[in-house]
Amino acid sequence: MAFEHRYRRMAQFAETDLAGIVHFSQYLRYAEEAEHAFLRSAGLRVHSRADESAYGFPRIGVRFEYRRPLRFEDEFEVHIWLHRKGSSTLTYQFTISNGDEVAARGEMQAICCRRTAENKLEVIPLPKDFAEKLEEAPHPPLVFRER
Amino acid sequence: MAFEHRYRRMAQFAETDLAGIVHFSQYLRYAEEAEHAFLRSAGLRVHSRADESAYGFPRIGVRFEYRRPLRFEDEFEVHIWLHRKGSSTLTYQFTISNGDEVAARGEMQAICCRRTAENKLEVIPLPKDFAEKLEEAPHPPLVFRER
Amino acid sequence: MAFEHRYRRMAQFAETDLAGIVHFSQYLRYAEEAEHAFLRSAGLRVHSRADESAYGFPRIGVRFEYRRPLRFEDEFEVHIWLHRKGSSTLTYQFTISNGDEVAARGEMQAICCRRTAENKLEVIPLPKDFAEKLEEAPHPPLVFRER
Amino acid sequence: MAFEHRYRRMAQFAETDLAGIVHFSQYLRYAEEAEHAFLRSAGLRVHSRADESAYGFPRIGVRFEYRRPLRFEDEFEVHIWLHRKGSSTLTYQFTISNGDEVAARGEMQAICCRRTAENKLEVIPLPKDFAEKLEEAPHPPLVFRER
Repeated sequence: MAFEHRYRRMAQFAETDLAGIVHFSQYLRYAEEAEHAFLRSAGLRVHSRADESAYGFPRIGVRFEYRRPLRFEDEFEVHIWLHRKGSSTLTYQFTISNGDEVAARGEMQAICCRRTAENKLEVIPLPKDFAEKLEEAPHPPLVFRER
Repeated sequence: MAFEHRYRRMAQFAETDLAGIVHFSQYLRYAEEAEHAFLRSAGLRVHSRADESAYGFPRIGVRFEYRRPLRFEDEFEVHIWLHRKGSSTLTYQFTISNGDEVAARGEMQAICCRRTAENKLEVIPLPKDFAEKLEEAPHPPLVFRER
Repeated sequence: MAFEHRYRRMAQFAETDLAGIVHFSQYLRYAEEAEHAFLRSAGLRVHSRADESAYGFPRIGVRFEYRRPLRFEDEFEVHIWLHRKGSSTLTYQFTISNGDEVAARGEMQAICCRRTAENKLEVIPLPKDFAEKLEEAPHPPLVFRER
Repeated sequence: MAFEHRYRRMAQFAETDLAGIVHFSQYLRYAEEAEHAFLRSAGLRVHSRADESAYGFPRIGVRFEYRRPLRFEDEFEVHIWLHRKGSSTLTYQFTISNGDEVAARGEMQAICCRRTAENKLEVIPLPKDFAEKLEEAPHPPLVFRER
C-alpha cells in the first residue's frame, strides 16, 4: 500500500515571472507532477494509454499557502501524501521545501470521472487498483490559516 | 473607489490538457488576469514600469473550487472583487462563469512587498494610491466547502 | 474565401519571465491563438466538439524571429495570413506588432491528421470546408535571415 | 571547453493539450531547459543571482521541426550542442529523441544583452567566462527542410 512520495525538481527559467520568482500558478503543476510520480510509484496511471477516456481525475478543489518564493534553479522537494481516500475522491496534502525551508503547503482534491458518449464527465467509483493500492497516510493533517 | 471588475476571456487551445478540458492551474492565471484588469480599471499597476522592483504583490494564499470544466473556445467571465483590504494585503474573491453556470470560485491573497538590495522580499504597507482607490466590496463573502 | 486575420491581445503577467519580458515560447501561443481566431472568422474549428478526435492540426514546423521584447501589459497585434495551402498542410506567416514596431515575425506549418483506433496520427487531406473556405494570401512572403 | 549536453526529461500532464500530445510551444521550453543544464554543466549561469540584470540571453530566433508527437509520461532526451559562437550570440542546435526515434529537431539563437538604466536591452559581447568555457561542437549542422 502506498501513501506518500517525495518528488525532486529544479525551478526552470520559463516558470519565473517578471518579479523574479516562480509564478504562483506553477506550484499547482509541481503538485500535480508529484501526484503523478506518486501514482507511478504505486504502479498506477491517471490515464490509461490504451483508452485515454476510460477515466480521469479532474480536480474539484485546491488550496495553497505560499511562504517563501522559489527562484530560478532552486532545487526543491514536493512531499505529497494521500490525506483522504473517498469512494470517488482522492485528497492529497503536500509541502514544497527548498532545503530546510517550507516554500509552500497545500491540498488538492481530485474526483474520478469517466467521459460519457456525449463528452460529459460522470463521477465513478475509484478504479479497483487505485482502491487496492492506495491508503491514507498516517501523517497529521495540515492546518491552514483562516483569513 | 473601485471594488470589483468583470473580465471576459476565451479558453485557448494551449490551456487545455489531454483530458480535453482547461488545466486546473490555468484558472489561477485567469484570476490573476482579472485582478490586473481590475487594478488597471482603477488606474493602478501591480508593477511600475519605471522601476519594476519598487513593489510587487506576491501571493500568500489561494483556494479554488472547480465545479464544471471549461473547454476550448468556451467564453467565460471572471467576476472578481476585493474581499478584504489589510494594511499590506489584498484578498480577492471571484467566480468564473460560463453562461449561467459557475465553473469555479476562489479566493486569492496578495501581500505588498518590495525587493531589498539583497534581493529579498520585504513586506511593506499598501502603496498610497492602492489604499486610496480600492475599497472592500459589499458582496457577501464566498463560503468554501470544508473537506 | 478567407486568407488573413488581425488578432489583438495584451501581454499578461504570467507570460513574462525573470528577465522582465515575455518568454519566447509564449509567442507560439500568441500565433496559435491568432490562427484559431482566423479559422473562427471563416466559420472553421480546428477541433469539432462532437467528435474531438475526428481531425486535428499538429504542427510540423515553426520558425520565429524576435526583434523587440514584449513586456507586461503591452498591447500587440498578430497579423496572420495563409501563406501556402497544400493538400494536407496549411502554412501560416505572421507578424507580431506593438504599435508601429514589429516585435516578431514567423511561420508555422500544420498538417491535417486524424487519430486512428491505435491512437496514432494519420495524415489526411484537408477537410472539405477548410479547402473551400481558405485561400492563400496575396501578400509577399516573409524572408527569414539565414544564420 | 564544453560544447554539448544531454538532458533527460519526462513529458508532464499539464504540457499536453486536448489533442492528447505535448503542445508544440512546450518544446521550446524543453530546449531552453537543456540549454541551461548545458551551461550549468560548464559552470555558467544565464543570470547571475547577485545581480540579475547584469546580463541575459534573450532569443533572436528559433526554428523547430516536429516529426513525432510526445505524449504524457514519455521519457525523452534533448541532445543540445553549440552550433555557432559569435561575438555576442550563441546558436544552439538540438534533437529531441524518444527512444530511437527523433521527435523534433531545432535551432535556437540567443544574444547577450544587458539591461540599461532605462530598462532597454543593449547588446554586449559574450561574458568572458562564456567565451572561454564554450566552444563550437564538431557535429555536422542540422539541415532544415525548406517549405
